[in-house]
Amino acid sequence: MNIGPYSFDEYLQTVKSFHGHIAPGMIIGGVMVDLAQRHLGSGLLYDAVSETRNCLPDAIQLLSPCTIGNGWLKIVNLGRFALTLYDKYQGEGVRVFLDSAKVKDFPEIATWFLKLKPKPQQDKDLLLAQIREAGAHILNWQHITMKPQFLGRKDRGGMTVCPLCREAYPAQDGSICRACQGEAPYQDPESAGMQTCVPSLSAVPLEEALGHHLLHDMTQIIPGESKGPVFKKDQLITVGDL
Amino acid sequence: MNIGPYSFDEYLQTVKSFHGHIAPGMIIGGVMVDLAQRHLGSGLLYDAVSETRNCLPDAIQLLSPCTIGNGWLKIVNLGRFALTLYDKYQGEGVRVFLDSAKVKDFPEIATWFLKLKPKPQQDKDLLLAQIREAGAHILNWQHITMKPQFLGRKDRGGMTVCPLCREAYPAQDGSICRACQGEAPYQDPESAGMQTCVPSLSAVPLEEALGHHLLHDMTQIIPGESKGPVFKKDQLITVGDL
Repeated sequence: MNIGPYSFDEYLQTVKSFHGHIAPGMIIGGVMVDLAQRHLGSGLLYDAVSETRNCLPDAIQLLSPCTIGNGWLKIVNLGRFALTLYDKYQGEGVRVFLDSAKVKDFPEIATWFLKLKPKPQQDKDLLLAQIREAGAHILNWQHITMKPQFLGRKDRGGMTVCPLCREAYPAQDGSICRACQGEAPYQDPESAGMQTCVPSLSAVPLEEALGHHLLHDMTQIIPGESKGPVFKKDQLITVGDL
Repeated sequence: MNIGPYSFDEYLQTVKSFHGHIAPGMIIGGVMVDLAQRHLGSGLLYDAVSETRNCLPDAIQLLSPCTIGNGWLKIVNLGRFALTLYDKYQGEGVRVFLDSAKVKDFPEIATWFLKLKPKPQQDKDLLLAQIREAGAHILNWQHITMKPQFLGRKDRGGMTVCPLCREAYPAQDGSICRACQGEAPYQDPESAGMQTCVPSLSAVPLEEALGHHLLHDMTQIIPGESKGPVFKKDQLITVGDL
């Protein structure tokens, strides 16, 4: 059995080197990408969707031109072990999925796929042997047409520099970047690059605020922490050196 | 200049083969991963975050053990050209970002990064030369600590088979899978794998429904299309063969 341009064993080595270990989902995923490509035919510029975050995106990245960083691969996390390759412009394509009925003919694959036993109790050697034996026999496929919003590339518009963290971000995200709006995954706001501006913030009485720049948000809301006090009419926060 | 285990030119070839073309963001991204790894030190098991969907995730996937499919790389799309590598268990790590102040010393990089000119008017050769010359001089870095929800792996719980599309999905998603809840990216519901069950649906009067299985949702709501009629007391929809 070949998987894309690789022999089965070459593919296993490639998986180990890229994905870190020979995961069952990576082998089945390779057979799935291969099947989708055969049904799609050659010469077509295609994008890819993975319906799961697990393994399958890596099989797509190894065996097709579609990667997460070049934008040709998208993950629509529906939790199903399925992938779709589709014409980048017309949206017509092929969806391949692991068939929960067919998988019953291969008990160790069913055990793994449906999580019928905890991982340490699964027989990994038997699982790999059954995956190799099963090949595409546990798969099914169908023609699909993508919804229009999945076709073409969105223009992400201009960039601007955030007045808080001083980093560049898409201007369409608002007057400060999404990290400074509270979406950063870091514990300490200062570690999210906000140290440049915070010391220059000061609260002044309303009559002294005239003509100064205002922060976009005068409610003292701290995203994820506090909805802030009711707006106080006698005090506005200004940024001295914006 | 080396980038990870590669010479500069070897890295360019690897980028071309994986990412499809030698994108400026992939070269700068490679230098960024390299810088983060040097500051993180060796022997640490780390996860990665990319703050953008563009290019950077691919540089991380090429130069580190972290991929989107093995779950070690996450994209938190803040629109900033920044990445973080952090201790998988403790959450402490290093964030590297393209510095919008330092980039001004390299006008063609600034033009590309801040989109000061449309792409066809940018000088790609000059841009690549400046990127090679700049190396890590356009970067900045800081220590960060991740929020607790980014540490460890979530247990995704058991799998079950969707009564509508007959595909396996995480049981915690509800009584039918997320695709059948209306999240599928495909135009035609039948092409999302729903054809198996739909013919067996039938509406019956309330008195005949006793003892039958009910669909989870009796409101006739069609996700994304209609909020459905007000619940009718004299009619329930049952699935004959569940």
